[in-house]
Order: sequence, then structure tokens, then C-alpha cells
Amino acid sequence: MDNQITLVQKTVVISATGREEREETLAIEIPYKVALNDRDIGTSMVLATGLEEFGVGFLFSQGYITRPGQVREVLVCPEGRISVHADVEEDIEPKEVIITSGCGGTGKISKEMLEGAFDPLNECGISLDEVNQFIREMLQQSSLGPKTHCVHGCGLWADGRLQGFYEDVGRHNAVDKIIGGILLGKIPARGAVYTTGRLTSDMVLKCARIGIPIVMSRTSASSLGLAIARRAGVTLVAYARPGRLNIFNRPERIIC
Amino acid sequence: MDNQITLVQKTVVISATGREEREETLAIEIPYKVALNDRDIGTSMVLATGLEEFGVGFLFSQGYITRPGQVREVLVCPEGRISVHADVEEDIEPKEVIITSGCGGTGKISKEMLEGAFDPLNECGISLDEVNQFIREMLQQSSLGPKTHCVHGCGLWADGRLQGFYEDVGRHNAVDKIIGGILLGKIPARGAVYTTGRLTSDMVLKCARIGIPIVMSRTSASSLGLAIARRAGVTLVAYARPGRLNIFNRPERIIC
Repeated sequence: MDNQITLVQKTVVISATGREEREETLAIEIPYKVALNDRDIGTSMVLATGLEEFGVGFLFSQGYITRPGQVREVLVCPEGRISVHADVEEDIEPKEVIITSGCGGTGKISKEMLEGAFDPLNECGISLDEVNQFIREMLQQSSLGPKTHCVHGCGLWADGRLQGFYEDVGRHNAVDKIIGGILLGKIPARGAVYTTGRLTSDMVLKCARIGIPIVMSRTSASSLGLAIARRAGVTLVAYARPGRLNIFNRPERIIC
Repeated sequence: MDNQITLVQKTVVISATGREEREETLAIEIPYKVALNDRDIGTSMVLATGLEEFGVGFLFSQGYITRPGQVREVLVCPEGRISVHADVEEDIEPKEVIITSGCGGTGKISKEMLEGAFDPLNECGISLDEVNQFIREMLQQSSLGPKTHCVHGCGLWADGRLQGFYEDVGRHNAVDKIIGGILLGKIPARGAVYTTGRLTSDMVLKCARIGIPIVMSRTSASSLGLAIARRAGVTLVAYARPGRLNIFNRPERIIC
């Protein structure tokens, strides 16, 4: 699919050198409705890339889809609809929901998910060299980031290479696209995730629920992001740069 | 109120100089439920400052409260509940909602709000000198920002001075706190708003709905943020730094 994802606009720059016209590239933010088995679940603002993955990851984050193998078909209609057909209990209704702090669209997590127990993670260790290579590749992936300053990136590294990379106007959406990729069998559910966004509660929660043992961010974590990492046993790395990691939980999975 | 808003945690830093223990300050992200006339509307992850303002601004962003003068009482219970009593139609129910890309908790806007007409803004012009002073003061306000890298700030400038400043784990929540301050009569509904967050659709929408004519960001705008600014007639400034503004719409309100 070839969706338009950026737009060039004329702007006026006022600075010490005076006033000049200039062109800026903007990320296109567009609403897409996600439906599950022909029932509308929600409409989210997204960057129109990886829409199949987004639809499935969104339904996972909202608690409708819970594991790989449930999704039968995903249809993307460019008019703004992602239609997912999946073998799930028909009357799943998210319990008491919490609106998240997240850039990125998922917007809600259930109280049950936030406070519930976690299944064991898909255990692994990664060498520091590999982690550094992962971060370096992540920083080179995005052409939209430096151009628009309006997207977040998320990638997954496993088996010695970058397995998937997605961008979105929302940091949550970018993670949802990775998770959708996992649920669709395009990306393995192991290894490490790197996001350019902050690790607030729901960011860590969705990675833990899908079984990813290492979650890294270019920037910070919140108190609740760390609390969830501790409960789930996730290795939480903040301010991750090539050559420098700040590990908030379970450092033993990064092998020096 | 003296809520705890940061937490110090031990971390392990791995870098070229080896492995060292270190302490990092985390922003505390905590769920608060917002109720309107004893009816639960939603629970949002917030930084526990300006909670009265947040509750009221949240209800505005979600379409329940629409103008100043409606709020009669706000009670904040530190166990996690903001109870707003207001003179609103009892059976208001947001129409078709869109989940936003926003860091910040409000999470939803109605399709009607996104596509509807706007009332005239509270017209004003601001000199470039004043704008520069505003940005400089904004950049000095935050102590949490440099410490946690996990909060967004939002301020309002009018009548030659900074009238209000709030921070939150979500960029939307910080704007909601400013808007709540306006609805509670603590901050005037005029002048310019500056946010450290991106100007996506809902960020611009809520400022336009409350009548603010100038909206500025330290960082970028999205395509839909600009589209709404154009429809509402808002002056949209991105990448705003002292001495340099990049104006995407209606530059004439910044007087050089």
C-alpha cells in the first residue's frame, strides 16, 4: 500500500536574520477505525504505515486479542478502516479501563491488565555488542523522524538482527505495530524492543504481555513503567545509546 | 496538597568506563479517576499536580464541560479521585470518539468536535519581544523536566506575563491543566499557549475550543494539527525557541 504519510507546507520563519519563507515536512496524522469481527472497537489517529499490524496490535493492547494464532484475516480499507477477523470470545468487553499517558493512540488499558499476574517471558540474554548494534541500526532506520520531528520509532531485535521497525505519530502505536507484527507471525516474540518514546506503564505492559524480556528506550521511564517491569521481570533500559545503557531492572540479561 | 511526584531509584549504568551504580529520578505516574456529578467518566494516568485543574480540563477535552461558569466544586481525594460538580446537561454522552495520538491521557476526542465549526477566538497580537520572553520563562520553569525527562510542560502567557504553568507525564494532561485553570477562573482565556509537546490534532483542538488564538510548541506539528489551526484561525508556531519562530499559520498575530 502506498499511503501518503508526509505533507510539505510553507511556513514563515522569524529569526535574528529576519523573516523568510520556508518549507517544512509534516507527518500526516489520520484517523483509522479498527473493527473486530465487524464490530467497531475504536478509531485511532495514526501514521498510515503498517496498518495491518497496527489493527492487530491495537486489539491486543485493548485486550480483545490475547495470543498469536487468533487472527484469521486483516483487511485495510484506505478510506480509514482496519477490519480484523479473529477467533476470540465474542463478548469480551474490557473491564474498568484506565486512559494512559501515551502518545500513540491505544489510549486505554484495563485495570485488570495493570494489576494482574504475568505469564513467564520468553527468556533470553543479549550481548552488549549486539545491543549496541541494535541501537545503532535503530537510529539509522528513520527518515521520517529527522524530517518531521513528529514520529516515534519502535524496533525488535532477535537472533542477531533487526526483525522489524515501525513508526507512528504515537509512541504507543509504533509499539502496537511491532506487537501486531508478532501476532501476525512476521516478527518473533523474543529478544529486545527499542522505542524512541518514554516507557510509561502501558508501554511496558504490552511488551510484557506478549513475552518480550528486554525493553529499551532512547529516553526515560516512569515510576509505573518500572513497577510493571519489576512485577513482570522485564529488563528495563532507559537512555539507551550506543555504548551507554542505564538499566533499571534485571541487568543480568545484558551480557557484558 | 503535597503529593509525591518523583521517586529515586537505583540503576546500573553500563558504559565504556565500565559498570556503575547510579540513582535516577523518575516521575510518578499515577491513575486518577475523574467523576462528573458523581458519575465516573474515566481514569487517567497523571502526574499528581494541579489535579483540580486537570479534572476540569479533562472534562472539557472530553466534551462534558464546555465553558467557564459551569463548575461549582472540585474535590480531590488523594486516594485517586477527582470529583467535579458542574451545571451541565446530565445526559451528555460524547458522540463517535477518536482515540488521539496524544501523550497525555485525554485520549479521546469526538468526531463532531474534530469536524465542527469554531467560535471566534479571543483576538490578540503579541510582540516578538514578549514571545521571546515567554519562551525563555517557559524553559526555566521546569525542574522536573531536566530531572526526569518524563514530563511535558504547558504555560499560558497573557497581559505581559506568564499566567500559569503546569507539568504532567502526558503532553495532553499538561494542556488540560491549563484549560482547567481557565475554566476555574485562575488563568485568562487569552494570549498564547506554549507546550513542550507536539501539536497533534487534539492539542490544537482544545486550545481553539477554549478561544486561545496563539499556540506554540518547542517541537513539531502534525498535518491535522495544522488543518485544525487553519479551520479555527489559530496562529500555529512550531520549533519555538527564544529568537526563532517557525510559524505555520496566521503569522500576523506575532508583531515584529
